[in-house]
Amino acid sequence: MAVLDILKESASEVLKQTNQIAGSKEACTEFGRGAGGDISTGLDLIAEKAVLDTIEKYHFRPTVIGEECGLIKGDSGYLIMDAIDGTTNAMRGIPFYCCSLAFATDYKMSSITDAVVMDLGTGDIYSSSKGKGSFMNGERLENTRKSGDTLQNMVVGMNISGVSHEVFSSLSYLLTKFKHARHFGANALELCYLARGFLDACLDFRNKIRITDMAAAYLVVNESGGKVYTMNGKILDNDFEQNTTLSFIAVRDYETYTRIASEVPVFK
Amino acid sequence: MAVLDILKESASEVLKQTNQIAGSKEACTEFGRGAGGDISTGLDLIAEKAVLDTIEKYHFRPTVIGEECGLIKGDSGYLIMDAIDGTTNAMRGIPFYCCSLAFATDYKMSSITDAVVMDLGTGDIYSSSKGKGSFMNGERLENTRKSGDTLQNMVVGMNISGVSHEVFSSLSYLLTKFKHARHFGANALELCYLARGFLDACLDFRNKIRITDMAAAYLVVNESGGKVYTMNGKILDNDFEQNTTLSFIAVRDYETYTRIASEVPVFK
Repeated sequence: MAVLDILKESASEVLKQTNQIAGSKEACTEFGRGAGGDISTGLDLIAEKAVLDTIEKYHFRPTVIGEECGLIKGDSGYLIMDAIDGTTNAMRGIPFYCCSLAFATDYKMSSITDAVVMDLGTGDIYSSSKGKGSFMNGERLENTRKSGDTLQNMVVGMNISGVSHEVFSSLSYLLTKFKHARHFGANALELCYLARGFLDACLDFRNKIRITDMAAAYLVVNESGGKVYTMNGKILDNDFEQNTTLSFIAVRDYETYTRIASEVPVFK
Repeated sequence: MAVLDILKESASEVLKQTNQIAGSKEACTEFGRGAGGDISTGLDLIAEKAVLDTIEKYHFRPTVIGEECGLIKGDSGYLIMDAIDGTTNAMRGIPFYCCSLAFATDYKMSSITDAVVMDLGTGDIYSSSKGKGSFMNGERLENTRKSGDTLQNMVVGMNISGVSHEVFSSLSYLLTKFKHARHFGANALELCYLARGFLDACLDFRNKIRITDMAAAYLVVNESGGKVYTMNGKILDNDFEQNTTLSFIAVRDYETYTRIASEVPVFK
């Protein structure tokens, strides 16, 4: 079975097993801190187990890097897993959270070859294989939305929760210009909204995003024709070190990047 | 037919007539500025017509105060209508926008007796009659979520798009404390998320919210046991003057209000 198909089946299994308990008391039970540093909930653990059981069923044994489970050594390649991205939403029942799974041949983002993000609220599945484009429910996502929108007209996903005073001040000029800032509460799914043309950009300048929140959607965005930049304008390409935290600007085109970057003093 | 039922049927008619065109080119066609000051799109106009046709069918002729159509003089009472709240989302296809309809016996918010907010992405219908509680799809919304969450643990809807530099600075302390700020992009529906217990508070300090964005959800929040405060801690109760713009803090309980208000210097 192709890697992408195993990832898809794993995500479907997560949907099946978490569907009924999102928003329930069981979902919210806390089990200490996961490897990523956040509280692991019952929902997170059920979801991770669904993925691990599915890959085992196919004797697919990459090294697993998981939001909750941490590192599980395997044979070859890497599975980067956030079985539930948007856990806070899921616990409340807010229908915006997802399962994020990426496979990489090597220990860095540019070697991600397959990715699946499943919207666990709607069942929509975003998938991507390197060089082959991005798809939603099998339909190709094409970067057809025209660029050239002013900051005022852009619809921009950005997370500013728990931002530092310093970053907050540096965002002042940008935020006063945006008319349509959004934050739905699950990074990977928000990036798929970008790939889908719903958003013009996704920003996170807090240096808090982890590899597990980012890996799968990174490929989905790139393969849809978008780009993910670092704060100093380089194409983002990190290793999978679990303690690494990131800032990024993901956009549909370079022009959008320069429009945004020119308004933020923290850019080098 | 009871007023609430006419409002429900009107909202269902909006759903029926806009369902297929959200996210399409037709939805995005612009028709100049509506009475509320925003650009009216094809979608807005189709939706308003659906409401006006439905009330006419029942010979229900209150004075209409509409986001696009402005004031249409009627016999008695007021219908406060934002036929599409979250137009930007609807134009893109982002499934978070709603139809907001309120009926009031007099020219102020405290005299709103009936309200319907329909989630046009999911078809969920929030409804309320004064003194009789709030409902979603017929099930009563009860304010059971415990208060007492710290700012860190609250999930808070807030719109900071196009905020002024002054308000932005005054929000600094609050925003650095929140861990879970959200903005989905449709004020009335976000307030229904509060009534449903998905959110602990909804804030908008920009003084940009119009009566038409607020009226229906105001009753839904109040009848679910929540409260809507002004920036100086009074219960919000405005007249329906169309040029009026508002700031507010909507919360599930007074304790949450004081926790938030104590962190924002702009409060008197």
